[in-house]
Amino acid sequence: MEQISLETLNAADRKTFMQAVGEVMELTPWVAEETFAKRPFASIAALYQTMTDAVRNAPPERRRELIDGHPDLAGKAAREGNLTADSAAEQAAAGLDKLSEQEFADFHRLNDSYRKKFAMPFIICVRRHGKQSILREFERRLKNDAAAEQRTALNEIFRIAALRLDQRVTAPDRLKVHGHLSTHVLDVHAGHPAQGVAIELREIAGSGARVIKRGETNADGRTDAPLFSGMPIPIATYELRFAVADYFAKARTPMADPPFLDIVPVRFAVAEPEGRYHVPLLVTPWSYSTYRGS
Amino acid sequence: MEQISLETLNAADRKTFMQAVGEVMELTPWVAEETFAKRPFASIAALYQTMTDAVRNAPPERRRELIDGHPDLAGKAAREGNLTADSAAEQAAAGLDKLSEQEFADFHRLNDSYRKKFAMPFIICVRRHGKQSILREFERRLKNDAAAEQRTALNEIFRIAALRLDQRVTAPDRLKVHGHLSTHVLDVHAGHPAQGVAIELREIAGSGARVIKRGETNADGRTDAPLFSGMPIPIATYELRFAVADYFAKARTPMADPPFLDIVPVRFAVAEPEGRYHVPLLVTPWSYSTYRGS
Amino acid sequence: MEQISLETLNAADRKTFMQAVGEVMELTPWVAEETFAKRPFASIAALYQTMTDAVRNAPPERRRELIDGHPDLAGKAAREGNLTADSAAEQAAAGLDKLSEQEFADFHRLNDSYRKKFAMPFIICVRRHGKQSILREFERRLKNDAAAEQRTALNEIFRIAALRLDQRVTAPDRLKVHGHLSTHVLDVHAGHPAQGVAIELREIAGSGARVIKRGETNADGRTDAPLFSGMPIPIATYELRFAVADYFAKARTPMADPPFLDIVPVRFAVAEPEGRYHVPLLVTPWSYSTYRGS
Amino acid sequence: MEQISLETLNAADRKTFMQAVGEVMELTPWVAEETFAKRPFASIAALYQTMTDAVRNAPPERRRELIDGHPDLAGKAAREGNLTADSAAEQAAAGLDKLSEQEFADFHRLNDSYRKKFAMPFIICVRRHGKQSILREFERRLKNDAAAEQRTALNEIFRIAALRLDQRVTAPDRLKVHGHLSTHVLDVHAGHPAQGVAIELREIAGSGARVIKRGETNADGRTDAPLFSGMPIPIATYELRFAVADYFAKARTPMADPPFLDIVPVRFAVAEPEGRYHVPLLVTPWSYSTYRGS
Repeated sequence: MEQISLETLNAADRKTFMQAVGEVMELTPWVAEETFAKRPFASIAALYQTMTDAVRNAPPERRRELIDGHPDLAGKAAREGNLTADSAAEQAAAGLDKLSEQEFADFHRLNDSYRKKFAMPFIICVRRHGKQSILREFERRLKNDAAAEQRTALNEIFRIAALRLDQRVTAPDRLKVHGHLSTHVLDVHAGHPAQGVAIELREIAGSGARVIKRGETNADGRTDAPLFSGMPIPIATYELRFAVADYFAKARTPMADPPFLDIVPVRFAVAEPEGRYHVPLLVTPWSYSTYRGS
Repeated sequence: MEQISLETLNAADRKTFMQAVGEVMELTPWVAEETFAKRPFASIAALYQTMTDAVRNAPPERRRELIDGHPDLAGKAAREGNLTADSAAEQAAAGLDKLSEQEFADFHRLNDSYRKKFAMPFIICVRRHGKQSILREFERRLKNDAAAEQRTALNEIFRIAALRLDQRVTAPDRLKVHGHLSTHVLDVHAGHPAQGVAIELREIAGSGARVIKRGETNADGRTDAPLFSGMPIPIATYELRFAVADYFAKARTPMADPPFLDIVPVRFAVAEPEGRYHVPLLVTPWSYSTYRGS
Repeated sequence: MEQISLETLNAADRKTFMQAVGEVMELTPWVAEETFAKRPFASIAALYQTMTDAVRNAPPERRRELIDGHPDLAGKAAREGNLTADSAAEQAAAGLDKLSEQEFADFHRLNDSYRKKFAMPFIICVRRHGKQSILREFERRLKNDAAAEQRTALNEIFRIAALRLDQRVTAPDRLKVHGHLSTHVLDVHAGHPAQGVAIELREIAGSGARVIKRGETNADGRTDAPLFSGMPIPIATYELRFAVADYFAKARTPMADPPFLDIVPVRFAVAEPEGRYHVPLLVTPWSYSTYRGS
Repeated sequence: MEQISLETLNAADRKTFMQAVGEVMELTPWVAEETFAKRPFASIAALYQTMTDAVRNAPPERRRELIDGHPDLAGKAAREGNLTADSAAEQAAAGLDKLSEQEFADFHRLNDSYRKKFAMPFIICVRRHGKQSILREFERRLKNDAAAEQRTALNEIFRIAALRLDQRVTAPDRLKVHGHLSTHVLDVHAGHPAQGVAIELREIAGSGARVIKRGETNADGRTDAPLFSGMPIPIATYELRFAVADYFAKARTPMADPPFLDIVPVRFAVAEPEGRYHVPLLVTPWSYSTYRGS
């Protein structure tokens, strides 16, 4: 997606403005139009505030319209290719375009139950969740009452809008929509950072796993880039795998044969998509520690 | 298998003696017969020494006969049910009776290469190895010269004999054929042993895994019985899985939602089947350590 | 002190009985006399119960007499050598016979305040406390009301009696008056217990320290005997000092010069004199962990 | 000391230049004079290289003069106040102006032995050493031969010069004369950095200790400024003391009474004055770990 600077946006004509941010709120251009009238914006936070205020202050029926404009997750519109570009990309990022038969049936059943109970689509900012977390939220929110779900739906819409805005508009400030996941391997056998440890990050779902990232530690024992940054970390279970036997073999560290530790798996869950997660490994050929660091 | 005490064995007639230990060395009753003549034995170690000395001091062709009497691993005899009871049980314990097509082909190929190079069967004490370790030893030993392999084959036959003897004869002393694997969970959040942690021990082979044992920690943070004892621990990769989120939830310890740590997997390999392995977990909802303890 | 078995005691005449346990309750032989009449005792726990019941069921004035029979801590009687042998030994074990001028003045002041407020001596089972803990208890209990202090004084007298009984009488069962302090050093650089680590246990009081025990780890990484056992561990701050650089030097483990870790001090407090404290050290030349284990 | 920028120095006249760096090499202005002729310098590294090259390329007798111009450590000149300002400050920083009788005698004896053997003063860059390390180096270097000591003396003079230059001249680049010592406290009971932990850094010498720095951890669990930076860390034994019981009490974390851990002492030695030392503490009320991090 092409990005536009806040400065340019502040000076833009209506058409350019609408092209840039008209789809931040799903299928409701009036939000952007009202916002256009309030230029300029001192910060992306102010722009975001203005857009969400427009929704908050709109008559109930317009808010309802906004909610109803959202598609089902893994629903008919998705199957038939009738999603907005944003929704399609968001659902795909969460893997909702590649469901198993069973998962598809689960979503179908939950969509139905939800619509039956609340007469509106189930809205969730899918970029903040792994597939299992979406299903869990579905089950959980089905127990709410209608008023609570209206509030939750709007809140999720605002989260979606924040992420869409963050992708479209650059500004000196940033919306607080980014998580951070990093690691660090310390060789406490030799007393220095472990360089050259192969690392794999997997998302775990049930008994399955999906490799998200592969990398290797540098001279400081870290990966050159964080494992996650610049986006929310989906709520999910992850496994970091550290190839420590290969590392110690290269360093000619005495080990058993086969080595006591080879691939060290560290399994943890992310609960705050905008949080800072540092998950280091302190390791010898015979021991290791890990923790949520900062 | 019915056990007999060393005392009884010392006083037994030839027939009883041969029934008890005649099959300790595969298909070579003469070893037991020679041993019968040297009764009584002060210890099971002395009995074992006498049997292995009989082999060591036998003419080369008899040693060769002993070697040749062993069946192929996962070979024709096994497929057709023509193994001795001991060999059948030993191969089954290592899972050689349940191979995939690919594994079966691997064993076939390796048996062939080995026989071609050494003109004898590949002999290994399978109770000391997981399937992958057997294949690894196969590949490794194929690189030896004939003299080294003769020595290795005899050494493995003596290991097999020691285990068979250990299962048949009780005595005040014991042969050193037993490994020990235990764990211990310490809740360093609350400062006491973690009681009621569900534990699973798996053997890992490639991307697959086989549950070997399930248990729960007692008031001392240990399992009531060791995870392995009274037999060798097969050389293999294992994974201990600790259900720590369930434990902390029962203890009403504050956690994230979902918990940062839920199932903690600790993966390690055993290299000494007769070794002592203690693999504890020191854990809070946000950190853990593990190590090879004693 | 000469010990007597419960069996012998059950069969003893009055004189022997009184010699053995007549001084278990300070200066009140009537407690033992009443107890004599209730022989035999199935266990030391039953004997102890009978003695404490005699006090509980005595008329208030006799209980008061028992309380008043106790000497001040570090008081006039102590200075003049007028303590019973038990009291003298107990006060000496806590170091109350070797006070600094300042400490002496503190005790004098606190004894005075306590007597002024409660019209009785301050009674505490000194074998369960270090000097600083006694002073802390003094300050704390001065805030109680008279009824609470009467109860506390009796409770402390019973603790003193239990310890005196435990030292005098052997029986198949034991009173629960013993603590346990042990350590364990694991070399997680090499993956085995650390043998030959010199260990020192100190009691820390303010900026001073007193060496209580010295030892060395054996092949299992433990001291041959526990650091404390068979008695209460006085409530106090302790420091375990592990000479790890000497150990790693003997093992020819590469280290910095001077070594990053040399003497590793582990400082902790005991709060439960009858508790089980295991304080291990997991160490490499560059890292260590410690924890309250079990 | 007033600092001058490299830019200004490059443009300065001879008098200003000599004022600024004339005393970088002890009592040998010719080094700076030769250097003056080679202006301008692209970097402080180039300036330093030029000065040390001047010494390297000087005739032996001038190098000898430079060596002989250095005062004894804690010697007669020091006692009588006859040191250059630089030497006085350097010796004071290492505490050589406040020696005990015993230490003074030790230095006297070592100075004598050294002069007797090598006919020159013992030269060491004292800012890189604690008192004990200086004495240790003294003993060690007394065993060298004369040629080795000449080389060592020059090397130490260059180290002294580098530090003097670093203090006098600012430039875009920096000489590699700075060490870094930092800490980090992580509350692995609660899963976040420990804010508000009082920290004390002590230098340990024999049974004595000297407080070097006090501080408190901030919201990130670190001290606002590193414990050491912008100078070498003297080779010495240090103790970091963390007041963890006060921290956990403020956080209302359940603890024993008295707390199992109160002041946690972490004792370590620095061997590389220009190294990077990160010494974190991972702590619960019942456990802690520390290590040399990065």
